[in-house]
Amino acid sequence: MSNLDQIAKLSGFSKATVSRVLNRSPHVSQATRESILKIMEELDYVPNGNAISLSRGQTMQIGMVTEGINEVMLPFLNSFVETASQHGYQTIIYTSGGDPAKELQAFEDMRRKRVDALVISTCVNDQALLGSYCKYGPIVSWQRMELPEIQSVAMNQYDGYMLGLEHVIGRGYTRIANAWGRPTSMNTSGRIQAYRDAARKYHLEVNPEWSQTGIYSIRQGEELIRGLLLSPGGHPNAILCANDMVAAGILSEARRLKVKVPEELAIVGFDNTELAHTLGITSIDNPIAAQAQNALYLILGKLGGKENGQQELEFQLVQRATT
Amino acid sequence: MSNLDQIAKLSGFSKATVSRVLNRSPHVSQATRESILKIMEELDYVPNGNAISLSRGQTMQIGMVTEGINEVMLPFLNSFVETASQHGYQTIIYTSGGDPAKELQAFEDMRRKRVDALVISTCVNDQALLGSYCKYGPIVSWQRMELPEIQSVAMNQYDGYMLGLEHVIGRGYTRIANAWGRPTSMNTSGRIQAYRDAARKYHLEVNPEWSQTGIYSIRQGEELIRGLLLSPGGHPNAILCANDMVAAGILSEARRLKVKVPEELAIVGFDNTELAHTLGITSIDNPIAAQAQNALYLILGKLGGKENGQQELEFQLVQRATT
Repeated sequence: MSNLDQIAKLSGFSKATVSRVLNRSPHVSQATRESILKIMEELDYVPNGNAISLSRGQTMQIGMVTEGINEVMLPFLNSFVETASQHGYQTIIYTSGGDPAKELQAFEDMRRKRVDALVISTCVNDQALLGSYCKYGPIVSWQRMELPEIQSVAMNQYDGYMLGLEHVIGRGYTRIANAWGRPTSMNTSGRIQAYRDAARKYHLEVNPEWSQTGIYSIRQGEELIRGLLLSPGGHPNAILCANDMVAAGILSEARRLKVKVPEELAIVGFDNTELAHTLGITSIDNPIAAQAQNALYLILGKLGGKENGQQELEFQLVQRATT
Repeated sequence: MSNLDQIAKLSGFSKATVSRVLNRSPHVSQATRESILKIMEELDYVPNGNAISLSRGQTMQIGMVTEGINEVMLPFLNSFVETASQHGYQTIIYTSGGDPAKELQAFEDMRRKRVDALVISTCVNDQALLGSYCKYGPIVSWQRMELPEIQSVAMNQYDGYMLGLEHVIGRGYTRIANAWGRPTSMNTSGRIQAYRDAARKYHLEVNPEWSQTGIYSIRQGEELIRGLLLSPGGHPNAILCANDMVAAGILSEARRLKVKVPEELAIVGFDNTELAHTLGITSIDNPIAAQAQNALYLILGKLGGKENGQQELEFQLVQRATT
């Protein structure tokens, strides 16, 4: 008697139902699934994972590659996990802590068919090395990539940042400071380029001390604005931030320093999160959840051998009390 | 010539160094690692994952089991990932989206030796079923468990919540509202019990409408306090929250409604995050990062066959401008 027969007999369900449980089909009730799993447990039956995968040709698991997890990427992560789940896929997140060898494990797992596809949130390995894994399965990226093989769903941050710049310039601010994020990322270079172009076009007063990279957190925002407002060389009257958390730190600290917002200091966040909404911070709406859906649609298209259409996305300025 | 010999010869490094790269040892410089990986890439050399695992007896990967990822669990997740990384382990996060079958994949992966151990952040399967996997490797949990086999590093929320209650009661507030989190969690039941005990002991005015569960986000905090303050049956003069985000939403909305904080409404958050610090919200310091370290130490102890000591942890009240 095969294992399947034995489980079917002991559980009182058909072989087809047992097979559906083994294949993680959603078309089995929770009660049925549990009683079959309990029988498997009693028999100490270990389903052969590879056999299941080969018979379906898929593991129904997608790996997400990331250095670590922070508040800014949560909307991407959660939207991807949820959309993947709706299509029957489980998302497994490989954290590397910035270690290239640990990061490579995710790519090796795809090579060994332990995951069907990979989505890169952030990566640290040489892009050409990662690109060489494209032959083993679909790889898409949220981070902007210089490599054509790995399609990215990122939006050009230049456009979003320019929206914020032109908004404060239009309201009469000319001494603009910048709290940028990761210095090496293409997102940051897009934002820097937007600032340079705006400075030239609108004849802004430029002071190198007003522009800093590596600013991500509430506390960094607080420290930055303290430094800027107390600097002897004159201080900026507007600041654009890498994200809404930095903007929240700046807003709170400005209030403690009795600086009037927006009269003496305009503040613009980025990503238009709940935090910006509740604190009344002007922000740039960045459709991150929709980018994650696009990433999954790209993967599903590649797995199914066809090109899937992408949602057209754009940034929007949401004006609130800080400008 | 073996693969190892060939890679060593082509890369110009010793077999020992190549072996260290294959075994993901941290004692190899980034440059060396990259040039060896490049050679492996050129040779299209796939290291045999199982062979490596068997020779070491370990995969050096730990799985984290969770329904999804939110701001509240980020400090746990990041502390665990970082501490594990310091000990050479990669953390792989299995998201289930609340689907018991997807969640079980992580446990099946440990049974098949794809991960060495599991840490549960939150889980939805029957605990007895999950406990039956303890024979395949160490399982520890952040979520409080009713099952003795799965050791939990959670702290008793009763104590932390009581700190907040006695703080506001000591400051003269008696009409206390509660914004609790997940209704079915042991964390919530500990907090509810603390409130019941305090209400009896300090003769608090109790109104069932003032206590709600399922409140996690900034927006839910805003809605909750609008409802409470506009309710005809008299309103509370203090509120304790499931987390600092809820408290931030309540504080912002109270300001918009021109309610004086803390004179007319005292607000206490939970977790003592950067958000509570910057907005000046009284909160309960919950040493979440240290709980994650304890979880890893427990796992390392079990993998090494010995009991590791745990850090003694306790809650602390951090008073700020909202009480």
